[in-house]
Amino acid sequence: MANKKIVIIGGGFSGVFAAKELRRKMGEGVDIELINKDNYFVFQPLLPEVAGGGINSSDAITSLRLLLKKVQVRLAEVINIDFDSKTITVLQGTRRLPVEVSYDHLVLAMGQSADLSRFPGLTEHALTMKYMGDAFTLRNQVIRCLEHADVAQLPEIKKRLLTFLVVGAGFSGVETVGELKHLIDKSLHYFPNISPEEVQVKLIEFADRILLELPESLGHYAQQQLEKQGIEVLTNVGVNSATMNGAELSTGEVIDTRTIVATIGTGPNPLVKKLGLEMQWGKIKVDRCMRVPGKENVWALGDAALIPMNDNPEDRLDFAPPTAQFAVREGKQLAMNIRRVINGWELKEFAYVSQGALASLGASKAVAEVNGIKLKGFFAWLLWRSFYLSFLPGLVTKVRVAINWMLHSFVPRNISLIEPPTKPATKYIHFRKGDVVFSKGMFADGFYTVISGGFELDLKNPETGEDVHRTYGPGQHFGERIILGRERRTGRIRATEDSVCLWIARDDFKRFARGFPLLDQYFQDYISEKFGEEALTPEDALGKKAAETDKDA
Amino acid sequence: MANKKIVIIGGGFSGVFAAKELRRKMGEGVDIELINKDNYFVFQPLLPEVAGGGINSSDAITSLRLLLKKVQVRLAEVINIDFDSKTITVLQGTRRLPVEVSYDHLVLAMGQSADLSRFPGLTEHALTMKYMGDAFTLRNQVIRCLEHADVAQLPEIKKRLLTFLVVGAGFSGVETVGELKHLIDKSLHYFPNISPEEVQVKLIEFADRILLELPESLGHYAQQQLEKQGIEVLTNVGVNSATMNGAELSTGEVIDTRTIVATIGTGPNPLVKKLGLEMQWGKIKVDRCMRVPGKENVWALGDAALIPMNDNPEDRLDFAPPTAQFAVREGKQLAMNIRRVINGWELKEFAYVSQGALASLGASKAVAEVNGIKLKGFFAWLLWRSFYLSFLPGLVTKVRVAINWMLHSFVPRNISLIEPPTKPATKYIHFRKGDVVFSKGMFADGFYTVISGGFELDLKNPETGEDVHRTYGPGQHFGERIILGRERRTGRIRATEDSVCLWIARDDFKRFARGFPLLDQYFQDYISEKFGEEALTPEDALGKKAAETDKDA
Repeated sequence: MANKKIVIIGGGFSGVFAAKELRRKMGEGVDIELINKDNYFVFQPLLPEVAGGGINSSDAITSLRLLLKKVQVRLAEVINIDFDSKTITVLQGTRRLPVEVSYDHLVLAMGQSADLSRFPGLTEHALTMKYMGDAFTLRNQVIRCLEHADVAQLPEIKKRLLTFLVVGAGFSGVETVGELKHLIDKSLHYFPNISPEEVQVKLIEFADRILLELPESLGHYAQQQLEKQGIEVLTNVGVNSATMNGAELSTGEVIDTRTIVATIGTGPNPLVKKLGLEMQWGKIKVDRCMRVPGKENVWALGDAALIPMNDNPEDRLDFAPPTAQFAVREGKQLAMNIRRVINGWELKEFAYVSQGALASLGASKAVAEVNGIKLKGFFAWLLWRSFYLSFLPGLVTKVRVAINWMLHSFVPRNISLIEPPTKPATKYIHFRKGDVVFSKGMFADGFYTVISGGFELDLKNPETGEDVHRTYGPGQHFGERIILGRERRTGRIRATEDSVCLWIARDDFKRFARGFPLLDQYFQDYISEKFGEEALTPEDALGKKAAETDKDA
Repeated sequence: MANKKIVIIGGGFSGVFAAKELRRKMGEGVDIELINKDNYFVFQPLLPEVAGGGINSSDAITSLRLLLKKVQVRLAEVINIDFDSKTITVLQGTRRLPVEVSYDHLVLAMGQSADLSRFPGLTEHALTMKYMGDAFTLRNQVIRCLEHADVAQLPEIKKRLLTFLVVGAGFSGVETVGELKHLIDKSLHYFPNISPEEVQVKLIEFADRILLELPESLGHYAQQQLEKQGIEVLTNVGVNSATMNGAELSTGEVIDTRTIVATIGTGPNPLVKKLGLEMQWGKIKVDRCMRVPGKENVWALGDAALIPMNDNPEDRLDFAPPTAQFAVREGKQLAMNIRRVINGWELKEFAYVSQGALASLGASKAVAEVNGIKLKGFFAWLLWRSFYLSFLPGLVTKVRVAINWMLHSFVPRNISLIEPPTKPATKYIHFRKGDVVFSKGMFADGFYTVISGGFELDLKNPETGEDVHRTYGPGQHFGERIILGRERRTGRIRATEDSVCLWIARDDFKRFARGFPLLDQYFQDYISEKFGEEALTPEDALGKKAAETDKDA
């Protein structure tokens, strides 16, 4: 009999621990595949320290392939799941031809996404703290503001550059504001034209105190510590909206700033949204064994799922909280349940009692509650770090990270502003005669205008069965139907001689072609004249759905 | 008497060592400013190791502010130099209003740029190895190819993904190909679906042997080492052209590959090009004391300058070679010459005899010639590393980097594919009523289409002196004249209510608006109708010049 195949979507705490435990308990008796958009695991609680330059990014991530021996890791984006045929459709590699992956058991562990859409302008003008890229961006943003402030000529610009606003005082907000202030304090003496009193770092929280996840006394201690470090903490204050120059608070006050970090607002992952599963509070409803009701062999856990902790859950406290600690335990217990199903044993309900909570405050301080015991200061912070080290695979890696952490407290903060090379939204692409630009079924990556040379299109009209041939020369264009939500190519385009195209990335082209009335009108006319209803093949439905989701997101 | 002000443009070896030596020898008696596009110094010879994942990027760079105590570091882009008024015009910060910096002595140390324009398609489809970003990009590219190949379905795609081509076998090409192969060898066991014989790594060199900078015997040793590591070395072979799918060699052979690294082809820095200085072989001609002839108190050195080593220079061997070793010595001697001028002493001509040369070959091997003695293997490689350590500022930093290097040989290669968050080419920008979008004189950053709300334009017609007012509502646009090369704003745009714009980055907009005939025609008509010859103010000349240079580049 062939091995059962278990596919896990998502490489966060819950997905990784489910995969590890499955491999550990079931040996080679099952095939395990983990699909993730990145090929590494991020230790998310360390992101604020990466943003603060306290540790290197490479010390807060681990390759999934290293972490998960004997698990097939697939670097891909899931675009659809068919629960009936037990098939997952993914985009991977460079060809952008969708690939199908089948499963016997499916684990949904894709977490949640940031969702700031309730606050006008916040999506566009605030930074978030969810991914490694966010930590990079924030660190660069702070250093760039210091660099610019050091040579700024207008006082109002300098003030705006030196004001930093963090929205939301949960774990992530508190740790981020602490690290951000620490980075500034440690770097300021390199910037001779900035005096410390010119810097303003603010933390705002809609509730009446910070760190609601911790007992009140620890919340107060944390607030005192932050204020002692020179951070202004405002409670009972939310954010209304944001622009390129600042934020408007719920009090009506406008904060002039270039740097807004929003640690509030999460919503379902875009993929989860379109699966048609029963949702509550933006999460997938599951039973106490983490099964998705009504779907065979489909499981969900971690931040993506709403796992009841008792039989009559009423409010949020009756469900597993979205913490790393719970995600790890959920992953392990889910693995055991899949094993039980495969072996025909009885399932067990998820049960776990929190061992406590911990928040780092920057400057080698933290607050913690462990098994009812409250800890604060340096010792709590050491505990925090030890937990992470215990998680890293391999002794040498642990030693390297530990040494780096130690040395990092002695060496100056790294204030190098490394701007990552950006992927251009427009570029010239050269083709040799005969090169295929794209072929039928490929996911559309962009829009092409011919600069020199020539191309030919071949497609079969799905209604008449007729072969269609067209040629394109300089000044003409192809691939424009992506603005209608048609995400997959219906024909093949090939260079008929050595040629050059100007290419524009899909999303940028869509935004511009829709937002700029001249283009919007032109393409509407062009497409209806040239293609009519001709080629709306069934596979486009998928693309259209994806496009709509993208628009909502 | 006010201090003399010495401005250095460029933060590479020559600029940094000139600044250090000036500060060391002249104390607080002079003001020193160093202007650079990045706020860090890159130890360029280590870039191949960063690309290979052998060291962290943070161990190959140092903050300029840390390196250059008591030197004003300005993170800015120089856009013009006026030698008569001794003024430099820079763009800095966020406002994009040009700022003027004056000097008594000016040191041109901006190095050279990559120039692949002789080979069609190479600029667009090859990676280079000059900046930190290049190293990142190459490392990501290699890992991405392995990830994709691990799940690729078509054999020809897999072959293309697993073929890697390095063009040019000087120091940079040899070190890059060695590190690249090493990264692949060390990572391959994480990719269960790729077998080692499927990987092809090729190095091509136009000359009849590799490493022309070193004695022939060392070149041969190096080639043997590379071949032993499984690298295919082809001499007497150049590249003709490149496309998105591969490269055509001078032999006519077409190599199917997604990864071309070009370490050939350099040209003058775009700024140097437009200064109108006398040039030879793409470098600024200077006298033996490194003065630029005909310009008062202007100096040039490093890769940007052609420094004669004797009174009758005939061929390239009569000039200082473009190596780090010479750049360091040039920096020091230039600093002494500026001191001599200020003190009224006699200048000294640049003189230096190379102490040797060194190339790392990957896998902890190197070849070297030091004072006529040939070294090879592990010992040469240790020498290489020691040289870098001696250069780092501060004992703790040295220790940290040394420990990291040591540990890196034990821990697995980091194969995490961290895709940097890209700066979008199009984005929605929110404005509050009264916000200024841009004002007169600002450098144009992009094109704006109004999505909602409204804006007003105020400008003064420079010919009639008349005040011009215009308003813009949804669907209308402003900022389009950048496609004509007008790089500086002639009026002020302000939001008349809370508004949202769709913004498109300057270069992407220019490329699209010029390359797409519909837009090209529309904007030509629109601009001539709306603005006529109205506002071609003198300050535009600068912008136009910059735009033309940009187009050439």
